[in-house]
Amino acid sequence: MAERFRVVYRLVGDEAAARERARDICLEQTVEVEEALVPPGMIRDHVVGRIEDLERVGPEHCEVTISYAAEITAFELGQLLNVMFGNSSIKGGIRVERLELCESLRTRFRGPRWGVRGLRERVGALDRPLLCTALKPMGTSPGDLADMAYRFARGGIDVIKDDHGLTDQPFCPYRERVVACAEAVSRANSETGGRAVYAPNVTSRAGELTALARFAREAGAGALLVAPGLVGFDSMRLIADDDAVGLPIISHPALLGSHVVAVDAGISHACLFGQLQRLAGADASVYPNYGGRFGFSREECRSIAQACREESGHFAPIFPTPGGGMDLGRVPDMLDLYGNDVMFLMGGALYARSPDLEANARYFRGLVEGPQNSMRPLGAG
Amino acid sequence: MAERFRVVYRLVGDEAAARERARDICLEQTVEVEEALVPPGMIRDHVVGRIEDLERVGPEHCEVTISYAAEITAFELGQLLNVMFGNSSIKGGIRVERLELCESLRTRFRGPRWGVRGLRERVGALDRPLLCTALKPMGTSPGDLADMAYRFARGGIDVIKDDHGLTDQPFCPYRERVVACAEAVSRANSETGGRAVYAPNVTSRAGELTALARFAREAGAGALLVAPGLVGFDSMRLIADDDAVGLPIISHPALLGSHVVAVDAGISHACLFGQLQRLAGADASVYPNYGGRFGFSREECRSIAQACREESGHFAPIFPTPGGGMDLGRVPDMLDLYGNDVMFLMGGALYARSPDLEANARYFRGLVEGPQNSMRPLGAG
Repeated sequence: MAERFRVVYRLVGDEAAARERARDICLEQTVEVEEALVPPGMIRDHVVGRIEDLERVGPEHCEVTISYAAEITAFELGQLLNVMFGNSSIKGGIRVERLELCESLRTRFRGPRWGVRGLRERVGALDRPLLCTALKPMGTSPGDLADMAYRFARGGIDVIKDDHGLTDQPFCPYRERVVACAEAVSRANSETGGRAVYAPNVTSRAGELTALARFAREAGAGALLVAPGLVGFDSMRLIADDDAVGLPIISHPALLGSHVVAVDAGISHACLFGQLQRLAGADASVYPNYGGRFGFSREECRSIAQACREESGHFAPIFPTPGGGMDLGRVPDMLDLYGNDVMFLMGGALYARSPDLEANARYFRGLVEGPQNSMRPLGAG
Repeated sequence: MAERFRVVYRLVGDEAAARERARDICLEQTVEVEEALVPPGMIRDHVVGRIEDLERVGPEHCEVTISYAAEITAFELGQLLNVMFGNSSIKGGIRVERLELCESLRTRFRGPRWGVRGLRERVGALDRPLLCTALKPMGTSPGDLADMAYRFARGGIDVIKDDHGLTDQPFCPYRERVVACAEAVSRANSETGGRAVYAPNVTSRAGELTALARFAREAGAGALLVAPGLVGFDSMRLIADDDAVGLPIISHPALLGSHVVAVDAGISHACLFGQLQRLAGADASVYPNYGGRFGFSREECRSIAQACREESGHFAPIFPTPGGGMDLGRVPDMLDLYGNDVMFLMGGALYARSPDLEANARYFRGLVEGPQNSMRPLGAG
């Protein structure tokens, strides 16, 4: 058991309190017995977590780095999350700041299949922010959604995804919708010479995700939407890794919110919406933008974007995909914050501007295509 | 779209603020567009959530009941969770208090296959609290874990489960462990005439859970441990529903903690550790007991036990399974609170009492078997 990975936790309390807390985490996340019961030898020396660093980071907080043997994760994503935070998630005052993988663990995960570069090539947009929208509202028929998809594709949207609430409702069956929308986007592409992709939502019954994803591929979908908060991060990984699917994965944050709403508990925005998404094979990570109807701050959004794009071994950078109640007027400020390697998810605002969805899409596209933008350095802000 | 189910949310704010918040939830959880963009007809009349009730429940909180059309869940558990709380989980100030299913939705879910009565019959304990322990610490070999399992079974523990961190580590491979522990418990049973069961942890790679569960069944395991926070509630449901498995399901709370650590966000203890567990087919729900190393209050634990056992259509009552840093001295108070229809999970304390695990188990069993206890009415406290 040579190699160890690290988890950085932010703990409430001064150094003494944090050290006691950290010792508890070392046991809780591994052997789950009190220190006196830990057998000497391999278990005490390797299996138990080890405090590697501890420093005060504010008047009431410390950051502690704990290392764990790679083998205790069984090289499984679910068990890695369990070691990172399984039982400790239930205690207040502990927040996962970031994960620092070791090589033997990292190499077991493929990470993003497409990443920023791959998705750019797929949609034929090499030097500007990508544009994404969602087909909605739920209750609309497959035919009408396909018509919307057609118009968005004609207007220059790159990724046209299902709203994340669309699964396999009686009024909008999955297979009928996927076939209709994929065909509509393909038709628009053939007319415009564009390369828009349709991304159906495969977040559905456990045990059926692979079949739904493969169906989507066969039907001509160009990407997939998955909500790991609903199906588990490893189910997203399974679909991302499936060579019979092979499509870019757009990750949606549904039900992940509980991890970030508490200041002193849960998982940091950067880890949850950046690091874990890349580890689980997402090529784009949807999260609520600052200033919209959700409460993320500009700084939290910046930290997510950084975690999506920073150097991380063989894990390709992915698209931070801010969305959620954005309005078109905020695009310039978002360009300032995010730079070019971003995908803007514009949902309701794109419907609200006018009844002409194609014109709305074209206007949106114009906002990110101005000459001032194409000169902006990648990732600036 | 006749039938509607209901979700009760607790919102921060006075009636006016709560009503505005509730209107937002009605849209956010369904159509995800602003009110003005909701098409008239079926979508406006049925798909959008509907405020059914709103009342002040304290100086700073209101409870609001919102109904949703059953069809929008596609009768899938993941999408039901998504409608209940998907995007709203990301906003602060909203907490899911409880879920009130309608008949058309309820009948699509089998619920617990065994429940309190079935699990009692399975382990041959008709009129006392059940006893559960965990094989640990991680790092112990399959042979040594099997030896512990043997001694616990001989001492009278009913359910001997893997510690939830045991998956398929190189130092303790799943199949080797399952075969060894199932055999050990079977051997103990044949010596004592008892009916203890071994419950291996099948929380592992997505796409392999069914195979692992079936292997466990074949190898003679008598129950299964699943952590829905790691694999998703619907994956637990999939295993519980699998007739080729057919074993009682013990649910573990790993990574679910973020939903309950914030007072004004997340999901209530009763809903998360009671209602959702039954809906997803668990027969026993493990959660941290009050007074242990986790922060649950006695009242929160009582609410979980109630949600596990209350009348709920065809969903069998299940065992609340308090654990987590319990000590043996707390058993009498727990009997007061929980009554008889409870499973006590005693981990570390059972190892700590003496090196003789069989004697420790026998002592533990004696605590719940006294004549004073057998006269206690079911569910009293």
